[in-house]
Amino acid sequence: LLYIALLCLVVLWFLGVRNRDPDRYEAMRQTLNNYEFQLKEEKLLIAEKLRMIKKDCQIWDPELPVIYIITPTYARPVQKAELTRLSHTFMLVQNLHWILVEDSDFHTPLVTNFLSNTHLNYTHLIAPTPAEWKRKEKEPNWVKPRGVLQRNRALDWLRQNLNPDTHKGVVYFADDDNSYGLEVFQEMRYTKEVSVWPVGLVGGLMVEKPEIDKTTGRVIGFNSVWKPERQFPLDMAGFAINLQHLLKHPEARFQLSVKGGWQETELLRHLTTRERLEPMADNCTKVYVWHTRTEPPKMAEEEKLKAKGYSSNLGMEV
Amino acid sequence: LLYIALLCLVVLWFLGVRNRDPDRYEAMRQTLNNYEFQLKEEKLLIAEKLRMIKKDCQIWDPELPVIYIITPTYARPVQKAELTRLSHTFMLVQNLHWILVEDSDFHTPLVTNFLSNTHLNYTHLIAPTPAEWKRKEKEPNWVKPRGVLQRNRALDWLRQNLNPDTHKGVVYFADDDNSYGLEVFQEMRYTKEVSVWPVGLVGGLMVEKPEIDKTTGRVIGFNSVWKPERQFPLDMAGFAINLQHLLKHPEARFQLSVKGGWQETELLRHLTTRERLEPMADNCTKVYVWHTRTEPPKMAEEEKLKAKGYSSNLGMEV
Repeated sequence: LLYIALLCLVVLWFLGVRNRDPDRYEAMRQTLNNYEFQLKEEKLLIAEKLRMIKKDCQIWDPELPVIYIITPTYARPVQKAELTRLSHTFMLVQNLHWILVEDSDFHTPLVTNFLSNTHLNYTHLIAPTPAEWKRKEKEPNWVKPRGVLQRNRALDWLRQNLNPDTHKGVVYFADDDNSYGLEVFQEMRYTKEVSVWPVGLVGGLMVEKPEIDKTTGRVIGFNSVWKPERQFPLDMAGFAINLQHLLKHPEARFQLSVKGGWQETELLRHLTTRERLEPMADNCTKVYVWHTRTEPPKMAEEEKLKAKGYSSNLGMEV
Repeated sequence: LLYIALLCLVVLWFLGVRNRDPDRYEAMRQTLNNYEFQLKEEKLLIAEKLRMIKKDCQIWDPELPVIYIITPTYARPVQKAELTRLSHTFMLVQNLHWILVEDSDFHTPLVTNFLSNTHLNYTHLIAPTPAEWKRKEKEPNWVKPRGVLQRNRALDWLRQNLNPDTHKGVVYFADDDNSYGLEVFQEMRYTKEVSVWPVGLVGGLMVEKPEIDKTTGRVIGFNSVWKPERQFPLDMAGFAINLQHLLKHPEARFQLSVKGGWQETELLRHLTTRERLEPMADNCTKVYVWHTRTEPPKMAEEEKLKAKGYSSNLGMEV
């Protein structure tokens, strides 16, 4: 019996050894460990890729100052075309909020549809220019002040809706026919008070720009030839204002009574001095903004159709 | 002895059981399994997120037909401004390859720098127009054919570099001053032979467009008033061609000898008939492209500076 018991125990032990198979367990553990390591590596890699793509994708970043773009606009044949290409530039800029102000008595369907089809952050405002201040058919475009009431409407909106203590940002006036390189938005984002840079194709020159003292790095003048007697002889596209600084100076606005070319000075004289201007764009040696103008298209055939009671765009938005 | 041996065996067996500790192994295996499952879930989640963002981000997709954009360009004050805003539109279009052809004897530094700073897929070509075919200073822009040699150079490049059996795509002629909604690229991508759509602000009309038979959905005419006798009275911006179809017709090209306004017909007569045209843009009822034109900027002050031996943009690229 004892021998049988002994034999049974040996068999049991042998089976136990086979079942236990510590080498097999060890191998499995090793495999799982390796797999775990690989998964961790992969997770890191994917997270990194995600971060990079997010960066390329210009997702809203709560840490980044917001660029508030103020654009006056008015109905004309090229309006939708101009707004469309401008919106493409803005789609490539992170943390951008577009304040589009129509010179109109009502929110037009064209601009309303257009804005609701973009994926931009926007505010759609209206501010009609009274008839006596409107430009007449054949009047040159510099006789009457343009965009004054629309830009002021946007400034009012900023002052009513943003908190100077909590909202970080910068304010920029971008007309709907100019051309903007993406670099100008990078440059302006961390403006402390008022920043300035060159503007191409304006004032009869290839480039209008602040002149910089190479030793101090400060603005010591401007190369403007047109109305150089202005305190700030620069174009609306050539400066940006820190949001909190603007909100702390409610007296800074545009004026209908001011002569053509003096609006920039009218606004900026409340906010800064020449000496305090912050030169951007590599010490004002680079051109990132161009004062382009779009030709009014020739509509001779359309006029003939109209005379006959037709129109080429019946029921179509152009 | 036998009892001692039996005891030893029992002890050995007991130790074996302790060492083996199958419960511990099992628990570890379970933990690792759970962990593996979690990681897999997370990986899927991240992959999905990545896919969504990639979609937003318009990353290159090997499955999607490529849009080959052919753009002739030439040196002028507004060139960089125009190329900049056009590039912003293209940056928002997936699987786009930009073929930019300079009317120049060499690759200019301005265009070379510009292209290398974009993140677009591009090919930079040159094709100089001989002096006798160049537009003279005061000559109206419709006397001499424009962009003919540049567009042909791009067609040659396509024919030399792409395989009609393997490369899926569509070819579109986009001038550097027009305005393009993103929808037009969606519309053209799956063109079978030649697709057509309305173009705004061209030919003296608010919109020039193919006329569609509402029953058959085919093109039965065009609303063009300017040179309506043309077989294809549409603008260069109003059609796109399937790449493989184009590659199979090497005879399709532009001609210097052809009269103004007839280039589109000259190319398309080799590729299609009116009846075979594919109407896009909601049966040609929507405008996604505008024939905008940019004013040559006034450079009066710059001319005065030049006379004195200065220039406002000395050492600066504008």
